[in-house]
Amino acid sequence: MTIPAPAWIAVDWGTTNLRAWAMSAADRPLAEAQSDRGMARLSGPAAFEAALLDLIGPWRDGRPLAVIACGMVGARQGWREAPYARTPCPPLAADLVPAPATTPGLRVLIVPGLAQDDPADVMRGEETQIAGYLRQTAGRDGILCLPGTHTKWVRLSAGRIETFRTVMTGELFATLATQTVLRHSVAAEGWDDPAFATALAEGLARPGDLTARLFGLRAESLLHGAAPETARARLSGLLIGAELAATRPFWQDDSVTIIGAGRLARLYQTALGAQGARAQTVDATAVTLAGLTAARRSQDIAA
Amino acid sequence: MTIPAPAWIAVDWGTTNLRAWAMSAADRPLAEAQSDRGMARLSGPAAFEAALLDLIGPWRDGRPLAVIACGMVGARQGWREAPYARTPCPPLAADLVPAPATTPGLRVLIVPGLAQDDPADVMRGEETQIAGYLRQTAGRDGILCLPGTHTKWVRLSAGRIETFRTVMTGELFATLATQTVLRHSVAAEGWDDPAFATALAEGLARPGDLTARLFGLRAESLLHGAAPETARARLSGLLIGAELAATRPFWQDDSVTIIGAGRLARLYQTALGAQGARAQTVDATAVTLAGLTAARRSQDIAA
Repeated sequence: MTIPAPAWIAVDWGTTNLRAWAMSAADRPLAEAQSDRGMARLSGPAAFEAALLDLIGPWRDGRPLAVIACGMVGARQGWREAPYARTPCPPLAADLVPAPATTPGLRVLIVPGLAQDDPADVMRGEETQIAGYLRQTAGRDGILCLPGTHTKWVRLSAGRIETFRTVMTGELFATLATQTVLRHSVAAEGWDDPAFATALAEGLARPGDLTARLFGLRAESLLHGAAPETARARLSGLLIGAELAATRPFWQDDSVTIIGAGRLARLYQTALGAQGARAQTVDATAVTLAGLTAARRSQDIAA
Repeated sequence: MTIPAPAWIAVDWGTTNLRAWAMSAADRPLAEAQSDRGMARLSGPAAFEAALLDLIGPWRDGRPLAVIACGMVGARQGWREAPYARTPCPPLAADLVPAPATTPGLRVLIVPGLAQDDPADVMRGEETQIAGYLRQTAGRDGILCLPGTHTKWVRLSAGRIETFRTVMTGELFATLATQTVLRHSVAAEGWDDPAFATALAEGLARPGDLTARLFGLRAESLLHGAAPETARARLSGLLIGAELAATRPFWQDDSVTIIGAGRLARLYQTALGAQGARAQTVDATAVTLAGLTAARRSQDIAA
């Protein structure tokens, strides 16, 4: 498919995935491409540049092209370390950092992540989504939840990130379900809504029992033939329940905006709704693009 | 080394290890051997029999020999399934189950594990240690803690197992330290006593924050250069703290007997001591042998 020459390229470069969009001069996506060449699979600047060129090659026409990238590409093990800005601060608080690209005409700028000193916490990529959310909405205050491998809870105040907290619920779920004895009892697919709801309530009511309840998933399947799909939903419910218990100060008295998509966003919306919390979901890709656009505008970069 | 002909063979056959002892007619160990051919590496009766013969071959002299085995060897994926006895019951509540050994003169009997219906829980191997503990001591009541991959907490009453609970602290520690993003921040060796004590107190005071605190180990190392040995001790402290919070009904008003050895047993004794709980440790191998002896005697087996 031939597309108009892009004005710039937007890139979301995480640990496991690389996504790129060809953007118009009006900051609309013209085309999208993605690969599995995330930070974890790459080592050294040449590997990052090659992975990017493979993806965006069809969109280049020889003219200079600016690439704005967020995510783990700016980590110490990324293409070029983009030092964290310190919260409290706006989501785009520091200058973009140029990556050492060697291809003539290719200019790659990386959005710095954010760090919080106490309690110690970090984000890379979510700051861009938060910037996009602020750009898209009139609001400058409120609570955001960005579910994922490392779910982030964020309190915004006057357009600044006041405090945030990471809960590694997604990684815990995947690791427990595939790397421990629970793998014999937890399905890779499938679901059980009532089991999720029950486990969510248990996890929220007694989050301290989490590690004691986990082995129960195995025992329930050995003794009572619990279905692997039920165990999967229960595991998810216990973990999200524990997360909501630990993050109650964020959502108890405020409505929550979930930045996400698909199943996982619906799961968090259901879970928060079951606690009487008001939650709405905004599309993660849309705010990522809005955030990368904001980052580009902030730097006054020539197209 | 030549040893006197054993009267019988004691075997502790877990998921990852196989240990055997040549036992005298007076039920004392004459020799010990071990291998890494645990249940997880074996499939089918012939593989189990070969693994056993490799280990005990030097002790056989052609005369008939009885082998008493406990642990995962009796699981569904073991040599022969030994169905669970149901708690509440004495630790050795059901007949031993013969494994289908084909070697002439070799008689292998497996100790059944125990199951608890509500909350669902299971054990295989620990019931034998508990039987050994009862055989070795005058007491018939009290609280046992058996730390390990899947730590067991057991309430004994009148020589019976009244209730028990499994917390998979050991497996969580190993999995989090090696299979998640924390592996970049947690050392494989090394320790930090004050960090363990602080994290233990945090884990006990706010066990529901566990999943929210885990990512903090990564952030502390990224932002503040926390030593990997410190992160290792903190991870252990948070997990054992959460375990103690969830098992408080077991240890709050009773002294605890830890069945274990080495570092891990000392860690639990330190942790319980820090909470003002009285704890003593008895050697795991000694009670395993006493329990296998009790199992053999219970069956009135000819040597």
